Order: sequence, then structure tokens, then C-alpha cells
Amino acid sequence: MIKRQRIKELLKSTDFNTEVTVMGWVKTFRNNQFIALNDGSCMGNIQVVVDFNNTDENLLKRITTGAAIKATGILVESLGKGQSVEIKATAVEILGDSDPEKFPLQPKKHSLEFLREIAHLRFRTNTFNAVFKVRHALAFAIHQFYNERGFVYMHTPVITASDAEGAGEMFKVTTLDFDNTPRTEDGVVDFKEDFFGRATNLTVSGQLEGELAAMAFGHIYTFGPTFRAENSNTTRHLAEFWMIEPEVAFADLENNMELAEDMMKYVISYAKENCKEELEFLNNRLAEEEKQKPQNERSEFTLLEKLDFCLANDFQRLTYTEAIDILKASKPNQKKQFKYLIDSWGADLQSEHERYLVEKHFKRPVILTDYPKDIKSFYMRLNDDNKTVAAMDILFPGIGEMIGGSQREERMDVLKQRMDEMGVPQEELWWYLDTRRFGSAPHAGFGLGFERLVLFVTGMTNIRDVIAFPRFPKSAEF
Amino acid sequence: MIKRQRIKELLKSTDFNTEVTVMGWVKTFRNNQFIALNDGSCMGNIQVVVDFNNTDENLLKRITTGAAIKATGILVESLGKGQSVEIKATAVEILGDSDPEKFPLQPKKHSLEFLREIAHLRFRTNTFNAVFKVRHALAFAIHQFYNERGFVYMHTPVITASDAEGAGEMFKVTTLDFDNTPRTEDGVVDFKEDFFGRATNLTVSGQLEGELAAMAFGHIYTFGPTFRAENSNTTRHLAEFWMIEPEVAFADLENNMELAEDMMKYVISYAKENCKEELEFLNNRLAEEEKQKPQNERSEFTLLEKLDFCLANDFQRLTYTEAIDILKASKPNQKKQFKYLIDSWGADLQSEHERYLVEKHFKRPVILTDYPKDIKSFYMRLNDDNKTVAAMDILFPGIGEMIGGSQREERMDVLKQRMDEMGVPQEELWWYLDTRRFGSAPHAGFGLGFERLVLFVTGMTNIRDVIAFPRFPKSAEF
Repeated sequence: MIKRQRIKELLKSTDFNTEVTVMGWVKTFRNNQFIALNDGSCMGNIQVVVDFNNTDENLLKRITTGAAIKATGILVESLGKGQSVEIKATAVEILGDSDPEKFPLQPKKHSLEFLREIAHLRFRTNTFNAVFKVRHALAFAIHQFYNERGFVYMHTPVITASDAEGAGEMFKVTTLDFDNTPRTEDGVVDFKEDFFGRATNLTVSGQLEGELAAMAFGHIYTFGPTFRAENSNTTRHLAEFWMIEPEVAFADLENNMELAEDMMKYVISYAKENCKEELEFLNNRLAEEEKQKPQNERSEFTLLEKLDFCLANDFQRLTYTEAIDILKASKPNQKKQFKYLIDSWGADLQSEHERYLVEKHFKRPVILTDYPKDIKSFYMRLNDDNKTVAAMDILFPGIGEMIGGSQREERMDVLKQRMDEMGVPQEELWWYLDTRRFGSAPHAGFGLGFERLVLFVTGMTNIRDVIAFPRFPKSAEF
Repeated sequence: MIKRQRIKELLKSTDFNTEVTVMGWVKTFRNNQFIALNDGSCMGNIQVVVDFNNTDENLLKRITTGAAIKATGILVESLGKGQSVEIKATAVEILGDSDPEKFPLQPKKHSLEFLREIAHLRFRTNTFNAVFKVRHALAFAIHQFYNERGFVYMHTPVITASDAEGAGEMFKVTTLDFDNTPRTEDGVVDFKEDFFGRATNLTVSGQLEGELAAMAFGHIYTFGPTFRAENSNTTRHLAEFWMIEPEVAFADLENNMELAEDMMKYVISYAKENCKEELEFLNNRLAEEEKQKPQNERSEFTLLEKLDFCLANDFQRLTYTEAIDILKASKPNQKKQFKYLIDSWGADLQSEHERYLVEKHFKRPVILTDYPKDIKSFYMRLNDDNKTVAAMDILFPGIGEMIGGSQREERMDVLKQRMDEMGVPQEELWWYLDTRRFGSAPHAGFGLGFERLVLFVTGMTNIRDVIAFPRFPKSAEF
């Protein structure tokens, strides 16, 4: 059995003069003597001091950036700057070489664009070590939050025969052959011959199935992958991304807003407590990046200030109608600086409007509620005004829409009418309608785009940098 | 905002003579007086006592099995049997009716087959409440186990362009049209026109990508959906299922076995501690089911005994070669009772052989190691005998293979030779080979089929009963 100590623990250790064994990857090797060694357990490296007079020259040559080594030695207090402990090596062994001519990650700053091309190696940089540690912490915090509150984690299906939600373009899932496609007598593709005996797609949301479970367990959440086959090449869209979708029976829009705000604050606090080192690093990284921008484009806040601000303040709640009034009267609307001018109630809000509300007007996360029914989904509960639905979008600075949710339409007659109006086939969703048929009750839920959360908490600016192997138009590498 | 108390908490409460509000679904309504109400927070119902003399008769009629109601009243000590508290209702409100003629879940025992047809409602039964609470607990325990040990949770891609792993038939993912398929001049389907600019599939495993991350973070795990387009209509196969795949750098097969055994014991203990009520119920359910079987087919152990036995005993470790010797000499082999007789080294083990080893010979979980290289994957580390690889399969009573894993081949030359031998294209896996090119190191990992774990811990016998909406040939309902 292989035994080694993790560098994260050793860096905190005061167990001096004991023998330790570490294994990791060489970050730098200075003066034929000082190895900065990283094993991924933390961003920090441990210094391994090689006794170069008594070490074979050929071995010394193989201690190159990227090489994997095993080092055994004595843990001692470090006299050098920047570290409290180091290892006086008694033995160094090369586990895996790394040709310095070929290894793409040299000890210098690489652009994020370049690192995206080598996504299989970028985890070895400080930035991506920090990003994925924060991503991990946020995922765990989400599970812990819901577990503590008695929610049941549901795995809703990824492959689905329903395309009724209308949330966007879908990917087909099939085992049929393009070259030998079975067809009915009419020449139509015969999906009866397909694996599932019908046409199937990748899910765009687990909500409808989540509702079924909520109407039995009371509180459920999903955390799984969702898909959009949209030709969006933006810094905020992915073809494959992870969503968290809680759904609660006996809940209205107020309960829903409270749950969402509690959750966001909980997971941000958790990351702050559990990723101090990483968030400090990302804070400085962002500050450096901001310096490259012209003064007037720089953020007022540092990353850590932004996080603290979210924790310290209530999210601003207002209706869509109130938001329209604010936007109509706003400077950029008056001065025609918006690309899409707001002139009447009913307009769908664009990113520029959302950002104005969040970043300029309220300067805090905003919960917009009660949108016009025509721009929202069929399952959202119709308000008494007959014009708006009990929807909520939560907007975050720098991100825009972080969460979208609603109270669901629990009244069978209203739901059926809305489905008819919006062209949603009732036969296909017989099981969904059954929840209104048998013991219907008010219920509500929302969807959180996980990568947008990670984007916000890490201060990264491109969503492709917060998921391991991003999927987007024309790209499915790795 | 809707306010209510959860039945799970009320059943434990001693806060008598206070007013409480509950909302839930009616399980039964006896004598126009006693409602057994369930809100999904636990399997247990709370008794709501209706003052039928002062309640509108029409309302009483609407208190039917499956209806959702709101009840307000005083929490009192119960005089009846089987419960310690009950609610003396002062007000009952129907939230959603349930037509007793049509509601499929009557207060009687339904077959699992029937319940599979109404998977959207089966969560409201005791059995499925218990199964999905245990499933939740196991999922949470897995995250907690890995989080405590410093593993990074990775979301590896679901859509993948690589079909190199050879683990089974894959589902195509595409946005191309069967009726208007773009073709190259040679008449071949032109996947350059597809969404990702190439042919893509649903992943069969996140392992290869997981290895990339392990070679940076040291310890990672995945927990995500995986897919097999195999025409398997068995009680142990699904087309869509969830897998947990840890991967550890600087680890060998010994470390791997230890991690797997620790994990299994951790999550089973967690379920035992956190799902007492549910496991007791499932234990009794299984005991009832066993009674229907002929004496000689009944299990020696109850469900709880089986779980305890796994916790109390070391998993039996032996090599494939040793297992072959045992099987060759075994009674069912001698008496030709095996369907596939074991006569020589190199044979792939069938379910009947695995079950013999686990259930008859060792009577405990078994870790089989060092399989012939020809029946295992290209990435498994070749042993010095040149004939076997450092693979491990963990076999569980009643389940068979629960976990499959290996030490990975970290030596570039050996890996390339194995890829050639097994027809795995090197160009397509350039990124995988890079981990051996730059700082390669011993590493190991495994895959745990989550539904098989749930099957084992709940004592259910059909894998379609432990996932919310199972996907299998000709079925993608809900």
C-alpha cells in the first residue's frame, strides 16, 4: 500500500524532526536545490530541499516542472520566506517525467483562453485549483443545506420523452441509424424501433418530475445535469450545465423567496468559511484583472466585498410592474442608452435591464416577481389580476439571472386553460396533471444554475472556466 | 406565507395543548372522525380527530384517501393505540380533492408491478417513502464521506465525443434531422454539421476524465448519471443510472480496496443511524416477502442482519486465480449445476459464480482481484506476470458486482501497447495519454453503481424500484 502525507496537512504541521513522505508535482526547481512541490490538496506548495551534493546529477536533471516525484525527508521549520515548514529530503524518486520542452504549463501566467485549450491540464494551475475547490465546496454546501432541512434528494431522469416544458431547444437521444432509419409505411421515422420505443431527448429541467415527488415527500430537491441545444456562444451559456431544483409542497411564492435567499446566503457563507485561501487568491486575481480595465469599467467592490455584501443585505424584492416603472424613468432609458428601450408594460427584460436594476439602482441581489403571464411558462400560478403569474427571478450583480422559479398552478381548470393557450399537449403530461387530480395543493420551487453560482462566488468571468470540460457549439473535446 | 408544522416533528413533540397546523394527504378516514394524515416528512401518519358533529357534511365527504387537507387544532396526548400524539381539529380545509373512484392508491397492498405503472404516485406509499429516504441518505453519506476526506467532487461531462472506453453500447446525442441529414460528398453523414461538430454520445463512465482531475487534485470523485444502450431487461440493469467514481493519485490496488471498503461501511452505517424507521419497515417488508418463498429459497439473514454483517466483517479478498480454484472444486461445478461450468483459467465469471462465492462459500462481501488482462479494460495496470491486471470487483450478496475498479496503467509504453492490442485509438485519447506524458504516477479508482447500493441497503429486488423514473428498453415514461 502506498503511504504518503498530504501537503495541506504538512503545511499546518508543527511535528518537526519527524520523517515524512510526500508525492506530488514539481511546480518549480530552483538552484538545483529547492523544489516547490504541489499535490493538489491545497494551492500551497511545500518546499523540498534537495541535498544536491549527494544526489545523482541525472536525477537532478529530471526534476522538472510538471514531473511527479516522491520525496522522503525530515520536516523542519523553514528559515526561508513565505513558508513555515519545509522538508529536508533524504531521498527523491522520479515517479513520472515531464519534458520541459513539451509540458505546456510553464511557471508563468497563461491566458484563460490558452488554458481552455488544455482543460485536461489546467486543474494544475493555482487559478483552477481554487475554482474547483470552491465549486466542490458549493456543491457540498447545497447538499448539506437541503439535508439539514429534511429535503429528499431526487435524481430526475436525464433522458426524457417529454418535450413539453418548452424551455429551449433539445438534444435528441437515439440508437437509430442515420443510414438505415426505420420508417413507417408513410415514410415517417419509426421511433417505435428506437431504444425507448419513442422519440427521446435530453432533459432541460427536472422540475415537472420534481413536482411529482414534492407532492409525496413535501420537500425535495434535484441536483443534476440539464441541457440546451441552443447556438449560444456567450460567456454565460453552456449546452450542458448542472441545476439545483428544490420543490416544496404547501408553499407559496413568499416561502419560495425565503428558501432561495436562505440557500444563497448559506452556500456563500459556507464557501467563505471553508475556502478562505482559495477565495483570497481569487479575490486578488480579480483585482489584478480589474486593474487592466479603464477606471470607469472597474467594479466598485472586490470579490470578497461582493460576497459579504450579499450576506449582509436582504435581497431587494419588487414586482415586475415596479421594475418597469423604475426602468422607464431611468437615465439609460431616457437617454436611449439601452439597446432595448422600455416603453411599455409587458416587455421581456433584457440582460442590460436586469444589470441596471441590480448593479446601478439597488446595488444588491434583486428578486423580481409577478411577471406578465405571456412571457412565462404554463405551469406558473396565475395571479388574481389575470395578467401576471407568481413567478420570481433572482438577479445577481455581474451575473443577471441566477435563479428562476414560481409558485405552481395547482388549480386543474386554470392549468388546463394555460396549457391550451400555450399549446402544451395535455395527453403527454397525463402524469403531471394527475398531481392536480389527486390531492392537489399549493406548491412552489425554483431552479438555480450551478455554474452561474460558481461564476459569482469565484469572480470568474467566463462560464467555460467554472466547469471541468465545457460543452458548447462545435466543442465536445475531452 | 404558508405556515405549517411537519408531522415528523409533531410526532416527537410533547408540546401538548398548543395550536398546530398541518398539511398533508389523507391516508385513511375512519368513522367520519379519524384522519390518518401524512405529509411525506416521515412514513408515520398523525391522527387528526375531526369534531364530526360540528363539521359540514359535505366537507366530511371530501375527506377521502389521497385528498390534500389543511388541519388546525390542538396537539394532545393520544389515548388510542399506536400513536403518542394526535390533533384535536378545530378547522379542516380541503386543499385538493381526490376522487375515491379514480385514485389508484387505495389503502391496501399494491403489487410492485402495478406501482411501477404509476411511478408518479408510488412515492406516496410507505414502501417508496422508505426506499427514497434511504436513497437520499446514501447519496448524502457518499458526499459526506468524500468531503471529509478532502476529495474534490467533479462533474465530468455527460455528452462525450469519446467512445473509446468500450464499456458498452452508447446512445447517440444529436441535433441532426433524420429526414434531412447533412452528408459529405461521399454520402457519409456529416457530423461537422452536428451541434458539437462531431458525433457525440452519452457517457458510459466519467473515469477517464476523472483521472485527469485526480492527476491534479490528488483525490477526486464523481457522482453523476451514466448510460448503457444495452437491450437488458433484467432486474439489475438500467439504461440510465447513477455512478460514483472516486480516483486517487499516488494510490495502488491496496489503497483502492481500502477506500472502497471504508466507503461501503461508512454509507451503510450512515443509513442505519439516519433511517432507523425506514430500514425497520423495509426489514419487515422483506421478511413478509421471504415468507412467500419455499423454505429452501429463503435468505438466512434478515435485511438488518445482512447490513450488520457487512459492517462487522472484513470483506474477503482473494485473486481471480484463487477464485477459479474454489469454483472448479465447488459442488455446483462438480455436479454440473452451474449453467457455465468452470473448467479453465481465463473464463469470465458469471453471476452464478459470483453469487456462489459470496453467498455460499464466503458468506460476506468479496473483493476479487487480478483478473486475466483479456477480459478487462485497456487502462488497467498490467501485473508483473504479464497475464493479469490490477483489477478489483467487489461482489455483494444478492447483488453480485457492486463495484468495479483497478489500479490504472501509468506507464506510457505499456498503456500504448495495451491500447493497440485492444483496438483503442490513441489519437482520440491524446488528452488521456498526456497524463502519462507529463508527471505520470501510480493511481487507482473504482466505480460504484448507486442503484445497486440502494438495492442492497433497502432489500428491494428490482432495480426499477429504487430509481424514481427508471429508463429501460421501450420505456421512458414520465
